[in-house]
Amino acid sequence: MTLRAAPTGDIAALMREMGARARAAAHALSLAPRERKDRALRAGASIIRSRTKAILAANAADVEAGRARGLSPALLDRLTLDAKRLEAVAEGLETIAELDDPVGTVLARWTRPNGLEISRVRVPIGVVGIVYESRPNVTADAGAICLKAGSAAILRGGSEARASSAAIHACLVEGLEEAGLPAGAIQLVPTTDRAAVGVMLSGMTEFIDVIVPRGGKSLVARVQEEARVPVLAHLEGICHVYVDGAADLAMARAVTLDAKMRRTGICGAAETLLVDRAVADSHLVPILSDLAAAGCEIRGDEEVARRFPAAKPASEEDWRTEYLDAIISVRIVDGVSAALDHIARYGSAHTEAIVTQDAAAAERFTRECDSAILLVNASTQFADGGEFGFGAEIGIATGKLHARGPVGVNELTTFKYVVRGSGQVRG
Amino acid sequence: MTLRAAPTGDIAALMREMGARARAAAHALSLAPRERKDRALRAGASIIRSRTKAILAANAADVEAGRARGLSPALLDRLTLDAKRLEAVAEGLETIAELDDPVGTVLARWTRPNGLEISRVRVPIGVVGIVYESRPNVTADAGAICLKAGSAAILRGGSEARASSAAIHACLVEGLEEAGLPAGAIQLVPTTDRAAVGVMLSGMTEFIDVIVPRGGKSLVARVQEEARVPVLAHLEGICHVYVDGAADLAMARAVTLDAKMRRTGICGAAETLLVDRAVADSHLVPILSDLAAAGCEIRGDEEVARRFPAAKPASEEDWRTEYLDAIISVRIVDGVSAALDHIARYGSAHTEAIVTQDAAAAERFTRECDSAILLVNASTQFADGGEFGFGAEIGIATGKLHARGPVGVNELTTFKYVVRGSGQVRG
Repeated sequence: MTLRAAPTGDIAALMREMGARARAAAHALSLAPRERKDRALRAGASIIRSRTKAILAANAADVEAGRARGLSPALLDRLTLDAKRLEAVAEGLETIAELDDPVGTVLARWTRPNGLEISRVRVPIGVVGIVYESRPNVTADAGAICLKAGSAAILRGGSEARASSAAIHACLVEGLEEAGLPAGAIQLVPTTDRAAVGVMLSGMTEFIDVIVPRGGKSLVARVQEEARVPVLAHLEGICHVYVDGAADLAMARAVTLDAKMRRTGICGAAETLLVDRAVADSHLVPILSDLAAAGCEIRGDEEVARRFPAAKPASEEDWRTEYLDAIISVRIVDGVSAALDHIARYGSAHTEAIVTQDAAAAERFTRECDSAILLVNASTQFADGGEFGFGAEIGIATGKLHARGPVGVNELTTFKYVVRGSGQVRG
Repeated sequence: MTLRAAPTGDIAALMREMGARARAAAHALSLAPRERKDRALRAGASIIRSRTKAILAANAADVEAGRARGLSPALLDRLTLDAKRLEAVAEGLETIAELDDPVGTVLARWTRPNGLEISRVRVPIGVVGIVYESRPNVTADAGAICLKAGSAAILRGGSEARASSAAIHACLVEGLEEAGLPAGAIQLVPTTDRAAVGVMLSGMTEFIDVIVPRGGKSLVARVQEEARVPVLAHLEGICHVYVDGAADLAMARAVTLDAKMRRTGICGAAETLLVDRAVADSHLVPILSDLAAAGCEIRGDEEVARRFPAAKPASEEDWRTEYLDAIISVRIVDGVSAALDHIARYGSAHTEAIVTQDAAAAERFTRECDSAILLVNASTQFADGGEFGFGAEIGIATGKLHARGPVGVNELTTFKYVVRGSGQVRG
């Protein structure tokens, strides 16, 4: 474990002070009725709307500085807000306010022979640290979802979005205050010094219960490497579509095209297509033609190249690559077993789909594949909290513990046991 | 199966080889029907019984060596097996065989408006690393509970129990083989080199999904400090009994005596008694007299000392101390609020009890206290997987994520999402 930079005493002290404030706010939030949390969210949305002009001006300054610093068009696009995007941010807060309050739900209850009544009750996690790139909307989304889950949030956004994030954050804080909740419930790290991230990851373990990184692979990798608290995240989404020998051709075409091309830059986008040799003659060329017509580059093994000459050769590295772009690697495999072997070897345990009319093949694929989300006859692009009906998500997790797949409000909680007796002793 | 000698100087390679074997075994286990896992457990129990003499001889050698090395009586006691204790080990395997198989359980299922049917299905975690002290029975318990949960176990027991653990482990492996399951499902680290623990904690993250330390505070602290994979554990159990102003005296006496004195060396034993000032006159002396009569040392604040002169003075350090012995720290507090404040400041988030006839006080205590287990009118010594009805536990967790309280077979699993469609695309 390496710390990038030895944090100066000042930053460490600043961060720990924020941590203490978050811990105190978390205690208040854990006891807050849903009405109060929802009121804070709705008030935050109103305040954002009423300050559209000021927020967009702050954002314009961020964008201008980013352009001057040579940010890529993709990063500039993520950084940029307009009236429509800002309205979506405000609506997002209102959507989260509508969600059921997870806190206090009795997850299970049973009575022991000695009369003890045991309940497992959902409670907030406490303090969530969110480390993200220069996307000002995440400031609102992440802060709001933590609030709804009853946890305090410590937000550390990318420095290029500094002014926009601060402007949005101020609205959230005013919303909290309007609802009588502590401002410490949603805090934005005020320094862009990267040492602050190091402190969040390893220097305030008593103040932060879980870290959620939102951003590219290098950010997530740094967080996973350095964090001394649990991390909910996925490093990458090398998602597969397996077209089985019993796949309906029209369905295989539609699912594959959507899985790859609907949006190529999201973690649930397919990166590799595996086609059962049994239908290589009938299915491969139509599927690849659709992709190519949509502007997708095809990289295939030798057999694929023979059948579809426009394909470029795929290297070993291609099977391990999350393109996040209009590129797909394609391989012919011998049935479900070979598809499972390929995924076990090259996959990232995120999301995989099988297209088949054979119930046994579907059952085997979903049973044996160890990824967080397995889809039968549906696009990998459904790997999303909204599509799962969670209303909002803070990310997708591919770890083995606590949460897997979309991390929504429920997944941002934990539980405790309440045991009610009448004087029982163990004796 | 005979244990191979550790190739000197190549502990990391040895451990990673074990990790790869565990990973392969975990895949097989994840697909194994419950009959096969249960058969392995029952066969292991039979083989242990049939080898009682040899196992006890191996244990006698361990004990003799331990005595020569000057192990404390408490450690020697934990190390020592006899026919009765070994029979309990065998029965433990059979108890675990009786438990419901968690794997494959559908935890939730819902259908989206677009027709997608989403299921959350319980699946094994994968590979569990267990690091424990010289208690040979843990070799069987921990290996068995992981097997039942469908995960492979890598066991690293204390060096003083080397021969006993190896003898018990050999029985488990023969049981696996009888049931047609891979021997790699339960592996015992064959070297006593402490470097092996370091490799388990940080050098084989791709092979171990979670670490469970079983042992004293220094062992757990080392694991929590060094581990690069999630850890399910508790560092200590500073458990409190709060006797509320509305407590029934007889109940308060019985619960406190049991919580402290039934067994003083377990993590659920009470370490601090908080008594509401409202009943200090009536309740304090009878409760402390019971404890003193049972051989418990009382350490109290000034007020306690005034009312119960046999009490020694409690220092600030006492409130932070897990005695694991016949000692209790005692404080007079001003009602539920002050009790909650004390616990928040000094507790370890493990287990706390309130004794009260006032439903509102009980509700407030259980709602506001952030520990894993909250008991109303019952002894803290019920903090135990068996007492919760889990059948078996691998430990108690006080972290915020994944599992809290007793970690049983269900808590040693995770889940995945299976999404069934009919060609849905996100479009």
